[in-house]
Amino acid sequence: MTPWQTLIPIQKDSSVPVYLQIANSIIKEIKSGVLKPRLKMPGSRELSESLQVHRKTVVNAYDELDAQGWITLKPYSGTFVSEKLPETTPVKLRVAPFRPDQTAETGYKIKPGSQVRDPVNTSRELTGFHDGPDVRLVPLAQLASAYRGVLTRKFALHNWSYVDVEGKTLLRKVLSEDLNMTRGMHTSPDNIFITRGSQMGIFMLSQLLLDKDDLVIVGEVDFYYACNTFTHVGARLLKVRVDDMGIDVDQIEEECRKRKIRAVYVTAHHHYPTTVTLCAARRMKLLSLSEQYGFIIIEDDYDYDFHYHSGPILPLASADRKGMVVYLGTLSKSIAPAIRIGYVAAPKNLILELGKLRQIIDVQGDPVMEQAVAELFVTGEIRRHMKKALKEYRQRRDYMSALLRDRLGEVIDFRTPDGGLAIWAKFEQGIDLPELSRKIREKGIVLSNGLIHDSAAGKKLNSTRMGFGWMNREEAEKAVEVLWNAVKS
Amino acid sequence: MTPWQTLIPIQKDSSVPVYLQIANSIIKEIKSGVLKPRLKMPGSRELSESLQVHRKTVVNAYDELDAQGWITLKPYSGTFVSEKLPETTPVKLRVAPFRPDQTAETGYKIKPGSQVRDPVNTSRELTGFHDGPDVRLVPLAQLASAYRGVLTRKFALHNWSYVDVEGKTLLRKVLSEDLNMTRGMHTSPDNIFITRGSQMGIFMLSQLLLDKDDLVIVGEVDFYYACNTFTHVGARLLKVRVDDMGIDVDQIEEECRKRKIRAVYVTAHHHYPTTVTLCAARRMKLLSLSEQYGFIIIEDDYDYDFHYHSGPILPLASADRKGMVVYLGTLSKSIAPAIRIGYVAAPKNLILELGKLRQIIDVQGDPVMEQAVAELFVTGEIRRHMKKALKEYRQRRDYMSALLRDRLGEVIDFRTPDGGLAIWAKFEQGIDLPELSRKIREKGIVLSNGLIHDSAAGKKLNSTRMGFGWMNREEAEKAVEVLWNAVKS
Repeated sequence: MTPWQTLIPIQKDSSVPVYLQIANSIIKEIKSGVLKPRLKMPGSRELSESLQVHRKTVVNAYDELDAQGWITLKPYSGTFVSEKLPETTPVKLRVAPFRPDQTAETGYKIKPGSQVRDPVNTSRELTGFHDGPDVRLVPLAQLASAYRGVLTRKFALHNWSYVDVEGKTLLRKVLSEDLNMTRGMHTSPDNIFITRGSQMGIFMLSQLLLDKDDLVIVGEVDFYYACNTFTHVGARLLKVRVDDMGIDVDQIEEECRKRKIRAVYVTAHHHYPTTVTLCAARRMKLLSLSEQYGFIIIEDDYDYDFHYHSGPILPLASADRKGMVVYLGTLSKSIAPAIRIGYVAAPKNLILELGKLRQIIDVQGDPVMEQAVAELFVTGEIRRHMKKALKEYRQRRDYMSALLRDRLGEVIDFRTPDGGLAIWAKFEQGIDLPELSRKIREKGIVLSNGLIHDSAAGKKLNSTRMGFGWMNREEAEKAVEVLWNAVKS
Repeated sequence: MTPWQTLIPIQKDSSVPVYLQIANSIIKEIKSGVLKPRLKMPGSRELSESLQVHRKTVVNAYDELDAQGWITLKPYSGTFVSEKLPETTPVKLRVAPFRPDQTAETGYKIKPGSQVRDPVNTSRELTGFHDGPDVRLVPLAQLASAYRGVLTRKFALHNWSYVDVEGKTLLRKVLSEDLNMTRGMHTSPDNIFITRGSQMGIFMLSQLLLDKDDLVIVGEVDFYYACNTFTHVGARLLKVRVDDMGIDVDQIEEECRKRKIRAVYVTAHHHYPTTVTLCAARRMKLLSLSEQYGFIIIEDDYDYDFHYHSGPILPLASADRKGMVVYLGTLSKSIAPAIRIGYVAAPKNLILELGKLRQIIDVQGDPVMEQAVAELFVTGEIRRHMKKALKEYRQRRDYMSALLRDRLGEVIDFRTPDGGLAIWAKFEQGIDLPELSRKIREKGIVLSNGLIHDSAAGKKLNSTRMGFGWMNREEAEKAVEVLWNAVKS
């Protein structure tokens, strides 16, 4: 044995690569003081012969030792044990000192996304015309109790594991029953796919069903994020008129005669943002066109639960007999915004493909949350809560409508909506809506500046959705007062 | 006033469209019995003159009544109140009877996804070689207690509302501190974006950074779902050799000289699926190549916490001074598979774009879960749990390695991994791995058939990842026994 062979024992059948065995042995001897700082190490050829390994193996070991800082390669003079030895655990990579500005910018170009951020969504600490449910009405005690049940029960472990990509079985079952009972649909649990909110349904369907340059029909003004999701995958939007009966189905028919339409996106229950309901006659005609021309109907029923009119019309999906409709729903408005549980109701072959796609998006949903919510359905808590909330929101709608007509009737034009949580209001031309939004925000009142609707429509609408769900009477009065003062000034 | 004007009062300034006012009035009179079934209704011209509205408005009202089933249009004879009146709430769409097979297939074509489903992931009720953490080791009591705190505390409401798309502030803060402290990184909370597991990070980065035909370098065999995510957006994979020091960086350099590389995907800590660690020298060279050639390094550090070797090497991200590295981590293995919290650590401009993109994917994360987990970091519970779990997993690794060498040493080839929860094992050519997997599954033991690795490599490897984390000693003995019996027979 040469001295190096003694210092550096090599086990050819070990699970540690030979170059690493060499490097680790040398580290050990440096640490123990056998190999002293500044000691000249043998050349790679010499050491490889001594150890009877390939020269490249020694070069790799030296590279590793150099990268970790144990040895120093000096040009023209050789390899030396470093003067200043590195820390040991964990192994640091030797780099230039860090400067704080180095975390600001990527070293490569990013194609900037086209998404506009609606300031309303990110400032829930302010009061105002937020377009969404009031978290103070969230059935907090019931939710906490349902979670507690799921978290502490004996079979709780299953809920922390990997689960079926389509969602928890119980939730799919209760949602299917609910859709059949309240919305005239004919689903089985196999037709239900749980998503994280209805937006994720729109996103997944776009990824799955739309190709570049596919034509998607939307309203002349429509849900900004849905439109952006379609164009994100390269689809093109074809905009169709919306009147007080909803999207113009005759115009859709004309378009179908002229070109191949892949999909029609409808918020039939309450068109977004205008809140109008698609009338029954147009629904029937749209369905029949879809069968005739083969386009997919993406029915986004994001706020079915919020309807104040005596007779809501059943979804298109309830009358779909040829598998043309994909139906999207959500619980995030009915329970709480943070309960991001939505669902897709669709033929089974589509559910299967959604499951495959999910594996590369978020792998699976949240079994704990899904189980907790499913149990609230079973106990009837969800329905009880919705009944109570609906009554409150109807009153808030009526009160806000009256306030707005009273104080701002001359500068805004709107129609009291049959459902939803917002009023679609058009401001008089003389009013600069974005400027108005900025002004009242300084006074602590949030109002969407309407730019996302301009962006969806491709023109200046000077209109916005004024959420009424977020404010009780006192808050509504204050908000309208602040708004009115800003308009006057 | 004509009789029809009395029956059908019209308010021009009402928020209800005129056609709907007409339809609703007629429904009311039908329901009250004034308009009897089979009564002939006036023609649209006559009624429009009588009501002094546009004829089209009456036609719309009649269409609506017909679609809802209140009236019947008989060709050549006129419009009649229906004999059989519809139900009222909600309004049904008249359709053919439903047949159960109608929920099976879409009426349009779906481009089938290319995802392969690994049967291991969906059968957690069986024991066996699952590749993941044992849910029985999940710190259940701590989790339940953290959730309880978040759910019942006074400011609980905020956690049910809309929140910042980047994730809860406290979680971003503790993760940033943890990365700086344990992995030598230099992040601020602004550099952290919370995702739903690391897979969602891979997905979002692909959507954001990769264009069609962009070249992405991956290992000759690599993480199947990452590869599929890249090709899902149309990027092309360039496969590079992996040896016992990790991915071959010299070959990456050769490729860079020949063509424009957009990104290199590395699982540097433990290469997936082979478990080898990328040596320090190669890390430094890869970083320097990335600066020279401008490619992005996507460093997927999915199992940093699971390292049993004395000196793990710090991530490439710790030595990144030019913003070339995007770093991905996850807590779903460290805490529980269902805690789908992952994160991207990257320069701020990329975090901003991720936030915009999120708005069309899932809008936001789960503030309740994020807050609960953040608090477990603050109290130190996560670190305590990981220390304990790591000790257990190290023992399981050693025990499983010994068992496999003892019983199956002649038919499988493997190296005891330095980290992670699985052994990368190559089966002898004579053994049909998929068939073997089927056989032992019948006996209640799960083993991945390895086909996802074949699919990633584009050739038959006859290799698979044998998870050891899921089984205690007794279960490991049983599983290896079943496997050995199946091999023999």
